[in-house]
Amino acid sequence: MMKKRTAILISGRGSNMQALVTAMQEPGFPAEPCVVISNRPEALGLSWAAERGIPAIAIDHRQFANRMAFEARLHQTLLDHNVELICLAGFMRLLTGGFVDRWRDRLMNIHPSLLPAFPGLDTHQRALDAGALIVGCSVHFVRTEMDSGPILAQAAIGVLPGDTAETLAARVLEAEHQIYPLALRLVASGAVRIDNESVLFDAPVVVDKPLVVPRLAATH
Amino acid sequence: MMKKRTAILISGRGSNMQALVTAMQEPGFPAEPCVVISNRPEALGLSWAAERGIPAIAIDHRQFANRMAFEARLHQTLLDHNVELICLAGFMRLLTGGFVDRWRDRLMNIHPSLLPAFPGLDTHQRALDAGALIVGCSVHFVRTEMDSGPILAQAAIGVLPGDTAETLAARVLEAEHQIYPLALRLVASGAVRIDNESVLFDAPVVVDKPLVVPRLAATH
Repeated sequence: MMKKRTAILISGRGSNMQALVTAMQEPGFPAEPCVVISNRPEALGLSWAAERGIPAIAIDHRQFANRMAFEARLHQTLLDHNVELICLAGFMRLLTGGFVDRWRDRLMNIHPSLLPAFPGLDTHQRALDAGALIVGCSVHFVRTEMDSGPILAQAAIGVLPGDTAETLAARVLEAEHQIYPLALRLVASGAVRIDNESVLFDAPVVVDKPLVVPRLAATH
Repeated sequence: MMKKRTAILISGRGSNMQALVTAMQEPGFPAEPCVVISNRPEALGLSWAAERGIPAIAIDHRQFANRMAFEARLHQTLLDHNVELICLAGFMRLLTGGFVDRWRDRLMNIHPSLLPAFPGLDTHQRALDAGALIVGCSVHFVRTEMDSGPILAQAAIGVLPGDTAETLAARVLEAEHQIYPLALRLVASGAVRIDNESVLFDAPVVVDKPLVVPRLAATH
């Protein structure tokens, strides 16, 4: 089996990167980590990756005159490592349409909401303010519009009494660590097609037990 | 125990009405059905209720000069039956601010989406079109703005391969039948307070097992 060469882009600790790398170490996983890139040289995730023998590269966006110059270097670095798939994992730079289009349907992101609800920043606080009792996370192919694009996987969790944006973020993060590897596995295995911006799975889809769970919880 | 006298407003078959009435027949349930009202005389739910000894009344909105006159009759009918709580169950008339305000925090609705996502009509098709893999339903107190108001309960279900708006609606409806009685029980038992448009539960909240369920499914 040819494993898909996968880059992971981070800006910080990279907890989703760790979940992806750990999953890719499983025998038979159809992708392998070939490079980790951070736009922040001080990102803790860089040393975590380097310690595991994964090329870990800082491309400091502040060293570039503009977004295009930064992305040109980023793109060249990806080509240098023969990257086939990219996973954004807490990468805190917006990518331009030029970059996104070049990696169309090979560039994934994870967002801590049940998209299309609550795109953008501060998602957990906005969900709490809206009184949502069920929240979650989404893995999606990246399009130019922020936090949009065909959805590959989602997980739902319940809001608990006393939850704050911080406690909710921590629990949703656990779910992120579960679904991002699942989505990468599907994409890397070639089971996914995009048709009219909808995700089609050629392979049989594993469907968990029914997810009907009434959920009663205080939001604050 | 004084059971809360509960009206159910329908426009058709009233499957959520049936779920509510069935739940209220359980010993110790803190609410009882005291009247079922339909704005359509031909609604099948009326005879279902009447057969069970529940006063079933048609108030045909077409017989009234305007919305205010219709709602005045509706309001008087509710007073005549000493109604304390109202559950909208597929009631297909928009209610004005005047009526809504008079029944504030005593008037509930169920909507087939994970609010605040997808308010309004055609919710399942719109969720499919957005590529959502997790959808659901919400019970909420009614405010003047359609499908808004403090959320009392939600349930999430996964989209399955081949789902259409119709198949999805059918599965979400099963979840609706579960959470509407749960929400009514909480409200009728006095466990719910509204603070700054957020729902607070004074009684301990029963929290089901963690709802973290990665969900991978084709949307079409």
